[in-house]
Amino acid sequence: MHSILDAALQSARPFLSKGKVAAYIPALNRANPDQLGVAVCLPDGSSFSAGDAGVGFTIQSISKVFTLVTAIRSLGRDRVFERVGLEPSGNPFYSLVQLEYEAGRPRNPFINAGAMAISSLLPGETSSIRLDVVAGGMSELCGRELSINVDVYSSERDTGNRNKAVGFFMKHFDIIEGDVTVAVDTYFRSCSIEMTCLELARAGLFLSNHGVDPTSKQRILEQHDVQWINSLMTTCGLYDASGEFACRVGVPGKSGVGGGILAIVPGKMSIAAFGPALDEKGNSIGAWKVLEFLSAEMGLSLYA
Amino acid sequence: MHSILDAALQSARPFLSKGKVAAYIPALNRANPDQLGVAVCLPDGSSFSAGDAGVGFTIQSISKVFTLVTAIRSLGRDRVFERVGLEPSGNPFYSLVQLEYEAGRPRNPFINAGAMAISSLLPGETSSIRLDVVAGGMSELCGRELSINVDVYSSERDTGNRNKAVGFFMKHFDIIEGDVTVAVDTYFRSCSIEMTCLELARAGLFLSNHGVDPTSKQRILEQHDVQWINSLMTTCGLYDASGEFACRVGVPGKSGVGGGILAIVPGKMSIAAFGPALDEKGNSIGAWKVLEFLSAEMGLSLYA
Amino acid sequence: MHSILDAALQSARPFLSKGKVAAYIPALNRANPDQLGVAVCLPDGSSFSAGDAGVGFTIQSISKVFTLVTAIRSLGRDRVFERVGLEPSGNPFYSLVQLEYEAGRPRNPFINAGAMAISSLLPGETSSIRLDVVAGGMSELCGRELSINVDVYSSERDTGNRNKAVGFFMKHFDIIEGDVTVAVDTYFRSCSIEMTCLELARAGLFLSNHGVDPTSKQRILEQHDVQWINSLMTTCGLYDASGEFACRVGVPGKSGVGGGILAIVPGKMSIAAFGPALDEKGNSIGAWKVLEFLSAEMGLSLYA
Amino acid sequence: MHSILDAALQSARPFLSKGKVAAYIPALNRANPDQLGVAVCLPDGSSFSAGDAGVGFTIQSISKVFTLVTAIRSLGRDRVFERVGLEPSGNPFYSLVQLEYEAGRPRNPFINAGAMAISSLLPGETSSIRLDVVAGGMSELCGRELSINVDVYSSERDTGNRNKAVGFFMKHFDIIEGDVTVAVDTYFRSCSIEMTCLELARAGLFLSNHGVDPTSKQRILEQHDVQWINSLMTTCGLYDASGEFACRVGVPGKSGVGGGILAIVPGKMSIAAFGPALDEKGNSIGAWKVLEFLSAEMGLSLYA
Repeated sequence: MHSILDAALQSARPFLSKGKVAAYIPALNRANPDQLGVAVCLPDGSSFSAGDAGVGFTIQSISKVFTLVTAIRSLGRDRVFERVGLEPSGNPFYSLVQLEYEAGRPRNPFINAGAMAISSLLPGETSSIRLDVVAGGMSELCGRELSINVDVYSSERDTGNRNKAVGFFMKHFDIIEGDVTVAVDTYFRSCSIEMTCLELARAGLFLSNHGVDPTSKQRILEQHDVQWINSLMTTCGLYDASGEFACRVGVPGKSGVGGGILAIVPGKMSIAAFGPALDEKGNSIGAWKVLEFLSAEMGLSLYA
Repeated sequence: MHSILDAALQSARPFLSKGKVAAYIPALNRANPDQLGVAVCLPDGSSFSAGDAGVGFTIQSISKVFTLVTAIRSLGRDRVFERVGLEPSGNPFYSLVQLEYEAGRPRNPFINAGAMAISSLLPGETSSIRLDVVAGGMSELCGRELSINVDVYSSERDTGNRNKAVGFFMKHFDIIEGDVTVAVDTYFRSCSIEMTCLELARAGLFLSNHGVDPTSKQRILEQHDVQWINSLMTTCGLYDASGEFACRVGVPGKSGVGGGILAIVPGKMSIAAFGPALDEKGNSIGAWKVLEFLSAEMGLSLYA
Repeated sequence: MHSILDAALQSARPFLSKGKVAAYIPALNRANPDQLGVAVCLPDGSSFSAGDAGVGFTIQSISKVFTLVTAIRSLGRDRVFERVGLEPSGNPFYSLVQLEYEAGRPRNPFINAGAMAISSLLPGETSSIRLDVVAGGMSELCGRELSINVDVYSSERDTGNRNKAVGFFMKHFDIIEGDVTVAVDTYFRSCSIEMTCLELARAGLFLSNHGVDPTSKQRILEQHDVQWINSLMTTCGLYDASGEFACRVGVPGKSGVGGGILAIVPGKMSIAAFGPALDEKGNSIGAWKVLEFLSAEMGLSLYA
Repeated sequence: MHSILDAALQSARPFLSKGKVAAYIPALNRANPDQLGVAVCLPDGSSFSAGDAGVGFTIQSISKVFTLVTAIRSLGRDRVFERVGLEPSGNPFYSLVQLEYEAGRPRNPFINAGAMAISSLLPGETSSIRLDVVAGGMSELCGRELSINVDVYSSERDTGNRNKAVGFFMKHFDIIEGDVTVAVDTYFRSCSIEMTCLELARAGLFLSNHGVDPTSKQRILEQHDVQWINSLMTTCGLYDASGEFACRVGVPGKSGVGGGILAIVPGKMSIAAFGPALDEKGNSIGAWKVLEFLSAEMGLSLYA
């Protein structure tokens, strides 16, 4: 496995120069575009990593998976999907257009609107408490007390006017429950959670193990809930490139503009890759290439 | 297997009364909403069926899979995907809105625009010749000389003004190659191909067998082409319910308003189900329920 | 003139029952749909009124005219139209769709976004101070110290999530200057200014007198500024019925969901009509019919 | 008047170099961007012209005014406006997006869809006969047998796929009456009518004279029909710059990508200006500037 991971990194490196780090906030813009890392966790508890797998990065939209996991655990799947849909949006993840045509209901949990709507359902009066619920569950899974990158969080909060617009717009349609600003701020905080590849792969491992965390033997979610989450990652996980990711990599995945991608191979493994250089659609070029290599090399695609 | 198929039909029947047969042309509107059938084909050559698996129906949008297969076989995957994208559209399958915003380029091969664009690439001067290329390949796979339902085809052609609009619109953007009316008419003809569930499952079997037709041992497509087609069925195959189908059934599928759904379980089997009663999004209610039952019963979801 | 005004009211009354009072906030929903009034002011200082011309109502979107007037007076026309356009939107007045496609720039000063963008330019640190600037100018023109309807303002503020969304969205694109909530709250306050028909006609009289208030002889705006404002009222003043109003009435107008319409006949007169029963597009049915009668009777259309 | 016209041309010339001639068909692309002409007709029968007022050009979208006139004369205003609306579209004149959201009904008679829908109502089985009806009426008004520019017409027809798409799309919604291709071809032919500024001003003179052609003393339309047409030119006549034209020029106008603009000053005069160099929105830069000069100089704006 180690040699495969090394080969994957090597195959991906030449593409890094074609990407750009996220520019919408200074804290992300300072990232090093040459970084590249990958970690694999197996249900037997073993894990493997290569490159910058120990470098921390903010998980950004990958947090949407864990917000969804947290909400399903607290409220059950039905209550969550009263608020958000199951379909790919066909629109940019930040768009308000579709929300207007569809009475404020987010198409799926992985566009910004969907994650904020779900954040509004989480238990806790303040965004700080809600973040603790989300991050607490993740900390248990990956074995370290996670925290947010305050610099990134502050930037997101101060410049997040588009997301605030999305929040108030959903409130108009009664999709957001309770205080809009709490929901939006919970979202900003979740996006700012800092992790390494290895921690991220560990946190996602239960999704490749039918809902059970192999380390603690604890059932995190029912198998049918896992089935839904992995399905949604498949159809909606890679922004406007989810279809192409399914063709080229062929497993459920979720990306973030911090440069991470979490990939789930049901029954087999979880993989987290990281590289801050992004393509035009906001996905990490390096992480994608690493995953594409691993999928081809190990025959991971679900569709072949 | 027979008892499972029977149980699947039984579980689905109560839902039929909630659907409606397609109403946009008389020939489809005369369909019997109580019909329900299913067929399963395995890579070992065995096949099983139940209910109205021997009743012929027009495959409608399921033909888009075989148009894509035919085009990849004649032209190679690269030339096909110069013309059409890989992403779910997030819009109705007949919509012109996204085409206008995206310079006429269809989002994927399974919306009407995509199928027409691909039809314009097929070899043959006339729509009749092009249909023979598509249907000929399918006939070989399912072991019977297929033909179109002339009544349905005539209706489609005479009332297909929206599809003609889509065709001329793409021609404006040079997405359609050659004569627009030939491409559009090829599309109408392909949609009118008549098959039974058993034939459809047979025709699709190679997609669950890494590209090789088990009966003839012939390689129809390379494995990586199959991987792409199955991926596209996953993200774009069930109209605006592709995401939900992935959650609930969990395998690549393609539906048609004639009432059929073709489902591919990679490495395991192909399934075709049929029931003319449709839900609001144009998918067969009965066929969907049959597939949902079979997926749960046999553990077919790729995401669990 | 009095008999013409009476006849106008009489011709309009039968249509009142086809309309509905604004329902989005309780304070407006309690309005009496049978009320109907009209007032006419001439450049010679004379004025005429009939029906409920002395009943106060909140001017709602008619305030957008005076916000624009105030901004042009303080900042000059050029600075204002750096922020907002001159074109009809073809979309509902509250829509976010066009804003997204056009980088947050409002199409014109009379959609909500446009009025908020202009409110953000007004002098004054707080919304209360800014309101005083707008209402102060209007008070001078109509000869009474105007104030806002606190009940209506509170409702607007508490339920105005869609408008807040519009505000934050424009802030994202740097169209809003300074604090979003001040701009949005200034907008809510302006909409809640309460006036009678007679006062409204007086406040608008200078727009029909080349920019000079005939009572005080004071020049309020340059003639070319008046020309622009009257033009914008023509193309954008009646929500999605501006084109029809131009056909049927044929003079610049601005309506509000409080039931008022201000009409300007350049060189001749200003007219304010009021009736809380609205049509589907949000325009007062009664006020429209009154104006249509007066236009036909007195030959006011600019286009005949 | 002659010196004013000369001054207008002189004021406009410096702007010509900022524009570009229409490029979508070769026949228009060969136009000379330095040409500039203007003609004014008064209700007393006198006329004045300057510059290239005797140069022929294709009237393109200006024909939409005369198609509307012809349809109202044959069918009455009510039947025409069953098919098309009265509102500015807020979208490009060729767009399909709004048509899809509004069930195929064109917003107004001056977008392409509107003109085609109206063309489908004209008497005559063939597009050639229908063109004769439209052009025949215009020929009487301007005193010369008009004909189409065959070169332009052929180009329009051969490359007009977007317009064909619009036609078939409206046919889908039963907005087009009878044969789509006849309606679309009638539209192409009407756009290709060739006239000079002087002829165009004469043909439009009745619109500034309450519906009566002063030369023949013949009533062409009722006054209220003229009122509607002039209103529609005001709100929808200059593509996406109708609002700005109302601000800067202030009279009803209709432009064409051939470089012409027809302006109507109700009760006073008709003006036709011509210059093939277009701005980004498809309006003649030179013709606009000429009209802006004349409006300011002679105080023509209806809104000042």
